[in-house]
Amino acid sequence: MMQDDFDRIMQTIGAQAKVASRQLRTATTAVKNNALHDAADGFIRDMDAILVANAKDVQAAKDRQLAPALQDRLALNPERITAMADGLRQVATLPDPVGAIDHMQYRPSGIQVGHMRVPLGVIGIIYESRPNVTADAAALCLKSGNAAVLRGGSESIHSNRAIATIFQQALAQANLPAESVQLLQQTDRALVGAMLRCADYIDVIVPRGGKSLIERVSADSCIPVIKHLDGICHVYIDADADVHKAVAIAVNAKTHRYGVCNAMETLLIHQHIAATVLPEIARIMQEKGVELRGCERACAVIPGMISATEEDWGTEYLAPVLSIRVVDDLDAALAHIERWSSAHTESIVTEHYSNGQRFLREVDSSSVMWNASTRFADGFEYGLGAEIGISTDRLHVRGPVGLEGLTTQKWIVMGNGEIRE
Amino acid sequence: MMQDDFDRIMQTIGAQAKVASRQLRTATTAVKNNALHDAADGFIRDMDAILVANAKDVQAAKDRQLAPALQDRLALNPERITAMADGLRQVATLPDPVGAIDHMQYRPSGIQVGHMRVPLGVIGIIYESRPNVTADAAALCLKSGNAAVLRGGSESIHSNRAIATIFQQALAQANLPAESVQLLQQTDRALVGAMLRCADYIDVIVPRGGKSLIERVSADSCIPVIKHLDGICHVYIDADADVHKAVAIAVNAKTHRYGVCNAMETLLIHQHIAATVLPEIARIMQEKGVELRGCERACAVIPGMISATEEDWGTEYLAPVLSIRVVDDLDAALAHIERWSSAHTESIVTEHYSNGQRFLREVDSSSVMWNASTRFADGFEYGLGAEIGISTDRLHVRGPVGLEGLTTQKWIVMGNGEIRE
Repeated sequence: MMQDDFDRIMQTIGAQAKVASRQLRTATTAVKNNALHDAADGFIRDMDAILVANAKDVQAAKDRQLAPALQDRLALNPERITAMADGLRQVATLPDPVGAIDHMQYRPSGIQVGHMRVPLGVIGIIYESRPNVTADAAALCLKSGNAAVLRGGSESIHSNRAIATIFQQALAQANLPAESVQLLQQTDRALVGAMLRCADYIDVIVPRGGKSLIERVSADSCIPVIKHLDGICHVYIDADADVHKAVAIAVNAKTHRYGVCNAMETLLIHQHIAATVLPEIARIMQEKGVELRGCERACAVIPGMISATEEDWGTEYLAPVLSIRVVDDLDAALAHIERWSSAHTESIVTEHYSNGQRFLREVDSSSVMWNASTRFADGFEYGLGAEIGISTDRLHVRGPVGLEGLTTQKWIVMGNGEIRE
Repeated sequence: MMQDDFDRIMQTIGAQAKVASRQLRTATTAVKNNALHDAADGFIRDMDAILVANAKDVQAAKDRQLAPALQDRLALNPERITAMADGLRQVATLPDPVGAIDHMQYRPSGIQVGHMRVPLGVIGIIYESRPNVTADAAALCLKSGNAAVLRGGSESIHSNRAIATIFQQALAQANLPAESVQLLQQTDRALVGAMLRCADYIDVIVPRGGKSLIERVSADSCIPVIKHLDGICHVYIDADADVHKAVAIAVNAKTHRYGVCNAMETLLIHQHIAATVLPEIARIMQEKGVELRGCERACAVIPGMISATEEDWGTEYLAPVLSIRVVDDLDAALAHIERWSSAHTESIVTEHYSNGQRFLREVDSSSVMWNASTRFADGFEYGLGAEIGISTDRLHVRGPVGLEGLTTQKWIVMGNGEIRE
């Protein structure tokens, strides 16, 4: 097939999604929730069909000798399918953002002006091997009144088809168009290119997966992308930090989970408190098997540490490795963050009011924290109820993206015959 | 010069703007307001210098025999300069959106989570011949904590330089970086291309001018664009409309000003009320010299009207021309709007509760009105205090864009040593 053919396929899918989105836009909360509950019931009822489809994907992955971690991400079992169904029921319990009216106020002309929250339209989701994303993403798009065009990894195509089919049955049962959730049936990479050119119909693209996927999508997309690339997160322990909190936060931010984007990658410590907190932090980290790489001053406190190079400040390890830098003061910490942060999440540990206030105000990241672990940068922890991704971009939405991030606002005006003089 | 040279110039300007934006990000409200007042004072004090510079532009426009309307847009006089200064003082009175904290709430983990409003960063403004945009745009960017890169029309280059110089003097006096507001000194069109590729430094582009400018900018930009293209606005007079309001709104929406994007271009009328309201509306419109183009049923009510063709439904006249269509019911009106609207502004005139509610909910435009003239779709009328443009896009901001539209939000977390378990 040629590029034109792929474009034609995507135009058809996109146009169908746009038509479906018009109906979804005004679907009632009850109808959307019913569909979510029906889909959850369907996952439990048709668990065997999902497992049979998934077994094909798992076998193919084995045959192709894909990495064990990838095989694990791919594999479903009754517990994972039940968790998927529970996830849908959880989305059904979330407040419906659509139609919410805000800040209606009278103007001197007599009109009342405010905002109404409305869906974005059609959301394209491009993801890798986890089949549960098919259900999660479809659920979040549906609840926020958007049509979804899903493009999962080719490794999980059979599982994704089984899940999407059940979801579409539930849509039909709720009298919603089946095209509200469409899974791309072909796994050609060229179809992704066509999807990213389908700006007439797709309003926003959300890539979910590794950095190379996200880079590729961002570079090729003609459609706005909600994404984050790196999570080079910092904790800064200020001179006036509470030592107990500082140790707990540093250890938690690094060691709670290593492979996550909100884990700390660099620890900054004020020179006056380094000798007090660093030995204890280093002891615990080393006990947990974390490799420490320090600047010269850090190495002077903890002899035997590996010397950090400039490359370390710009590396997202996603592993039990931590770089440590002793800084002169808050200004030096802010300058380091300005230079090296990926604008994901940074935290200051301090009891000093003005320093904490400055950090909150001056650090330009999607999440900025004071006396809390960077691991809290998460849709569930923030109370969004669910998360479709994280944005480190500036426009539209920053940080964890929940249902509201998949909506926008229109102005509404209620008058009594007012005209402009 | 080659493309590379222009790219190099823009990279330098962009990098300077980014550095300035870091300082602006945390500039206090008082400092920003002082700079605005100083610039306003400067416009009055150096009025002669502005007029001398402007005379050069006006003379060049005459020599080149540019259209009289363009010559008029270009020309400054003491009244217009005073209005420009007043505009700056007006922006100074607006509340500062930056740093505002919203919705801080405690989570079960003990952390407090909320939003802080922050500037977007660097805003690129591309505009045509009106020199006052130089002052307006600079003021709105400054007040919202953003650095501005301004690219005005080549016809007004001398005026723009004079205005930008005074603005920069005011910035210096307020101890803000002069690079907070940079005017491109070269008028080569290729520099616009370089600006639209400068995604490393410019966060958003706002084009201001005619449709061809906006189309060109949107097509070429690698940077998100805040824009609107067309204003094909509709008024729908429902069967249960109050006749007095219907006539007043229709006449005002069309005839208050013709060349504006929020003027009505198509009037939709429910079949049951057409014979009641259309003769009066037609009479007033014709008195005012508005050319009427009707569908078959409209022509049956008002004999002698020109027959509207399908092309009329898709035309933004920006002129004393109105297309009129009689529709079966609300559904038909909604279908017409869905098909032909440019998603700018639509209004329903009705006393019927459910029909009004449906219209507000179902019409997917940046402004949706009930019993009010479409002419109210405007930043000042909505209470934004000032307007940098109008967006008919879906992401980030829709409708009139004021200071808040030039900002974004970051998450802030205030804790007491919380860690994730």
